[in-house]
Amino acid sequence: MLVATSLFFIGCGNNGGKEQKKGGVLGSNVAEKVYVAPGEHDEFYAFVSGGFSGQLAVYGLPSGRLFKVIPVFSVDAEKAWGFNEETKPMLNTSHGFIPWDDAHHPDISQTAGELDGRYVYINGNNTPRIAKIDLTTFETTEIIEIPNSAGNHSSSYVTENTEYVVAGTRFGVPVPQRDISIKEYKGNFKGALSFLKVDPEDGGMEIDFQILMPGFDYDKAHPGRGNSHGWFFFTTYNSEEANTLLEVNASQNDKDFIAAVNWQMIAEYVKNGGGKKMPANYAHNVYDEHTHQATSTMKKEVLVVNPAEVPGAIYFLPTPKSPHGCDVDPSGEYIVGSGKLSADVTVHSFSKMVKAIEEKKFSGEAYGIPIIDFEAVNAGSVKQAGLGPLHTEFDNEGNAYTTFFISSEVVKWKLGTWEVVDRKPTYYSVGHLMIPGGNSRKPFGKYLLAMNKITKDRYLPTGPEVTQSAQLYDISGEKMELLLDFPTVGEPHYAAGCPADLIKPRSRKIFKLEENKHPYAVTNEMDARVERKGNEVHVYMTMIRSHFAPDNIEGVKEGDKVYFHVTNLEQDYDVPHGISMIGANTSELLIMPGQTETFVWEPKQVGVWPFYCTDFCSALHQEMQGYVRVSPKDSPIKLSWSLDGE
Amino acid sequence: MLVATSLFFIGCGNNGGKEQKKGGVLGSNVAEKVYVAPGEHDEFYAFVSGGFSGQLAVYGLPSGRLFKVIPVFSVDAEKAWGFNEETKPMLNTSHGFIPWDDAHHPDISQTAGELDGRYVYINGNNTPRIAKIDLTTFETTEIIEIPNSAGNHSSSYVTENTEYVVAGTRFGVPVPQRDISIKEYKGNFKGALSFLKVDPEDGGMEIDFQILMPGFDYDKAHPGRGNSHGWFFFTTYNSEEANTLLEVNASQNDKDFIAAVNWQMIAEYVKNGGGKKMPANYAHNVYDEHTHQATSTMKKEVLVVNPAEVPGAIYFLPTPKSPHGCDVDPSGEYIVGSGKLSADVTVHSFSKMVKAIEEKKFSGEAYGIPIIDFEAVNAGSVKQAGLGPLHTEFDNEGNAYTTFFISSEVVKWKLGTWEVVDRKPTYYSVGHLMIPGGNSRKPFGKYLLAMNKITKDRYLPTGPEVTQSAQLYDISGEKMELLLDFPTVGEPHYAAGCPADLIKPRSRKIFKLEENKHPYAVTNEMDARVERKGNEVHVYMTMIRSHFAPDNIEGVKEGDKVYFHVTNLEQDYDVPHGISMIGANTSELLIMPGQTETFVWEPKQVGVWPFYCTDFCSALHQEMQGYVRVSPKDSPIKLSWSLDGE
Repeated sequence: MLVATSLFFIGCGNNGGKEQKKGGVLGSNVAEKVYVAPGEHDEFYAFVSGGFSGQLAVYGLPSGRLFKVIPVFSVDAEKAWGFNEETKPMLNTSHGFIPWDDAHHPDISQTAGELDGRYVYINGNNTPRIAKIDLTTFETTEIIEIPNSAGNHSSSYVTENTEYVVAGTRFGVPVPQRDISIKEYKGNFKGALSFLKVDPEDGGMEIDFQILMPGFDYDKAHPGRGNSHGWFFFTTYNSEEANTLLEVNASQNDKDFIAAVNWQMIAEYVKNGGGKKMPANYAHNVYDEHTHQATSTMKKEVLVVNPAEVPGAIYFLPTPKSPHGCDVDPSGEYIVGSGKLSADVTVHSFSKMVKAIEEKKFSGEAYGIPIIDFEAVNAGSVKQAGLGPLHTEFDNEGNAYTTFFISSEVVKWKLGTWEVVDRKPTYYSVGHLMIPGGNSRKPFGKYLLAMNKITKDRYLPTGPEVTQSAQLYDISGEKMELLLDFPTVGEPHYAAGCPADLIKPRSRKIFKLEENKHPYAVTNEMDARVERKGNEVHVYMTMIRSHFAPDNIEGVKEGDKVYFHVTNLEQDYDVPHGISMIGANTSELLIMPGQTETFVWEPKQVGVWPFYCTDFCSALHQEMQGYVRVSPKDSPIKLSWSLDGE
Repeated sequence: MLVATSLFFIGCGNNGGKEQKKGGVLGSNVAEKVYVAPGEHDEFYAFVSGGFSGQLAVYGLPSGRLFKVIPVFSVDAEKAWGFNEETKPMLNTSHGFIPWDDAHHPDISQTAGELDGRYVYINGNNTPRIAKIDLTTFETTEIIEIPNSAGNHSSSYVTENTEYVVAGTRFGVPVPQRDISIKEYKGNFKGALSFLKVDPEDGGMEIDFQILMPGFDYDKAHPGRGNSHGWFFFTTYNSEEANTLLEVNASQNDKDFIAAVNWQMIAEYVKNGGGKKMPANYAHNVYDEHTHQATSTMKKEVLVVNPAEVPGAIYFLPTPKSPHGCDVDPSGEYIVGSGKLSADVTVHSFSKMVKAIEEKKFSGEAYGIPIIDFEAVNAGSVKQAGLGPLHTEFDNEGNAYTTFFISSEVVKWKLGTWEVVDRKPTYYSVGHLMIPGGNSRKPFGKYLLAMNKITKDRYLPTGPEVTQSAQLYDISGEKMELLLDFPTVGEPHYAAGCPADLIKPRSRKIFKLEENKHPYAVTNEMDARVERKGNEVHVYMTMIRSHFAPDNIEGVKEGDKVYFHVTNLEQDYDVPHGISMIGANTSELLIMPGQTETFVWEPKQVGVWPFYCTDFCSALHQEMQGYVRVSPKDSPIKLSWSLDGE
């Protein structure tokens, strides 16, 4: 317990981290560096995961302004995500509909090791999943569940041509699941590493294979690049295989491992018929931009590979002190493993690793997987750099930047010489950091974003729950300079940054009405109508500034299930409409130009009930409303509908 | 239709609204004015409603930084609002559980006409409700439903000692609800104005009375103050009582009305036994800070008042062109009614109104309510000030500021002389504006916040859905100066601003463990346990850095309903913990220090399933996890639980 109690000290600079604001040259320089004047655009997009919010937030840098919260794994009543009939299937899983997840590590798709700005992939940690966000629409268009996993944490990183996106389990579980005592963990629980093949055309995912590793906790991962392309690296902790009080029992071994996986070799193996299909049950959910609808398909088997079947494909690199971050430099030569209970940062060498494997410099094996001798693979260490190193990113000039959670700082050091160049405090307890492109061959080393776990007194207080926060540093000079504190929605768990020019020109403005293939779409106001099928009533409705068609509906009965299929006929940029019905047990719809969405209303009382447009659309927005009359079950009133009496 | 089509033109300044950024004196001055350096605090809180997000967002001014999204009417999977057992009752209504609403007009409680910073009230527009947010915890602690209403838009403004908070219906409905043709609207539908009495001790609400007004659309409202204290003013539109294509049919009359209501007279009337109780069905939901639980009570009747019963209490003030905003100046003398289809701003005089009533200068009556002669009540007009005036706020130097939606600008003018002093463009289509304290006797006239309905090209694009946005102006000089564009979450419908010093010192840091009266709380790790009651399993769990007690649980069976009652034992500021269980059909819990929350898990498959802490809490956060073993229904395995084998 002593170890644990000494570790929740929160680093806290004595000067309170206050920067000079006014009067000085420094003050005005810093203010200008982050000020994006009205009408101007930010230089970078930052896609910041919401951690326990389950979403992905889009910020501009250097201003720190929040442009959009993209709903991914959690329902969003503002945008009807998970509420309308079209998107409910996106949140389906083998456990049924789940309204939440914990979204951790966004990664932008790459081509030839450089950001291509097409997609963001992000993992759901709690009920293992990976989502794909399309950066033309900034919408989640695919979510795939990962079977045989629990705590999908070492995810969702892409290889350098986005051939694969990976998912590694943080918690060991029985594979397949079965009724076994928790005490039987050791040797019986497994840690699956999943490789999902990505379709080069549309970014779509399929699980190609799962490697059933020993039941360690696979914490973080990064792909090789350049010479190390074809390999993937995963940190592990709990190589003790403890099942209780892990803060003590999983901190016993002096070293855990980085698992080096030659995924190209295993992909070749399975392509040639290797591996074994096992029964599984997992959801694959895809949103179609033309039907404006999602479908959920339950998959029934998955291909698993036992490491012993593919000798030479997997090695363990001993790494001190429960390593957390696992980062690969732009050249692909260095693999940085940050022992979170350490003061040093350990760096392995890919070329030394290859040589050590050739020369069989092994110091043992674990469950049949060779452990490479530490000295044979270690490139060096950054000594006494701080306390509790977590994550490392890189600039384009041979520098690395590592966060230290316990000592609350970012430390800049040189690749190859391991010398510390600069250090700056963070407020407080920094987790991940992000440099745009810092996980690719081509980083854009102008800004560094530190994502903190604690803020306490940094902002105006908001009761017991205070905001989460990020801090922006200028790293264009030899020394880092703190520019800005900005709060974030959800926990800013990790981020992926990208120059705006790679994304902005491809951003869609509207959905074209003539491409709308929604089965209940009405693309012409004249076709608006209401149809009854038993106790189902289907309203084919249109909306345009500033009326609904129809806006008076009679003949609905108690006990009916009323589907409002609503099409926004606008074809102008930034003219969404919304619709809501009093007493509906669901959210409003927020419908983009050219799009169709559906909500269900089950009226509970006889009467006349209004609906209205929820998105202020014109000077006569208030007038954009209508009524539905609900009559008793046995009423003879026939279905009728009208607009302006017609 | 011509009127309507000409009105959705979106004003758009030709210079694109770009301000000079760098190099000039202006540029650096402006940047410095909004820059709040790391570690410093903003000067004002701004409580900005999320409109169709259903929530209330807390920003700092002048930085425009978002500190918290307070869940109010919509579920929030990040904070478990509407998901945990404790807060589900908060979203109960007469229509059942509703996961969303449209949150419009926050208003801060007042004492003697000045902001007191104790509570924010905010209306739910779709399913009529008012919520109270406690500004010591920044949590929603009460929601009351409003019966006989539909579109609770002219809400939730407070009187100058927070005696009452009001709710006025935007849509006429049958009262009581009944099966009647929509075409029978005219004369049959009613517009209820509800007055909720506020408890001076705890801010709690009860409906004191509802006035059953004619079936016009009651759009906005503000209380009198100073001499006009005791009165409330409501704009109306659709005095035509149209029921279809309102963009045309509700824009026929040259003038609609401002309804002037002497609420003190009516309160006295009902206190003396006036009014009539009618059956009603509405939810009153209250969250108790000590039990950390909400309860929902269904109320069964409401007191209604027919205006004819209280002669002399209600008058109509004719106001041109479908008036929208209804704003009262700090002195209480001027009532500003903005005809949204007008170019002028109409101002009525309270003292002239009193005199006109005495002298019976009436031009007619509507449903028995006297219509005061326009000339007898009108104080003046701001002529040709812009197109489509919507809302007005005030500074402390006799100036008024009105937004113009169609011409996209804010216009500053002088009370009494009605002369226009300055005008500045907004980008684009401004709705409400806010000056801190601008709706009280004591405005803080330093900043003005314009809340826009359209942003289009102002920020980096994010696909078809672009951000909503506000703009900050410096109004400390003769001319207004645009300082900052900042995006908002949800639609920035309206806001209430307050100097930070009125709120900050009272902000709570933790919940005291010794005051925790949650029936399932465990305030000592030694008392953690698991109990079975039939197929219900209750886990009394604790969490502290960095373990759960218990963290291994066996003996749960398929078909069980497992309640995790989890207490955060921390008593330090900014140390929440989270908990989630793989496959749970609900959200995580995010639990503040000293608090207890509950989630339900209904395991669907036999196996061993992990849970973990979702809020990064210490260097050993990753190790804060546990397992539950789920055995077949008929398994003989007994319930057991442990931490570190004990």
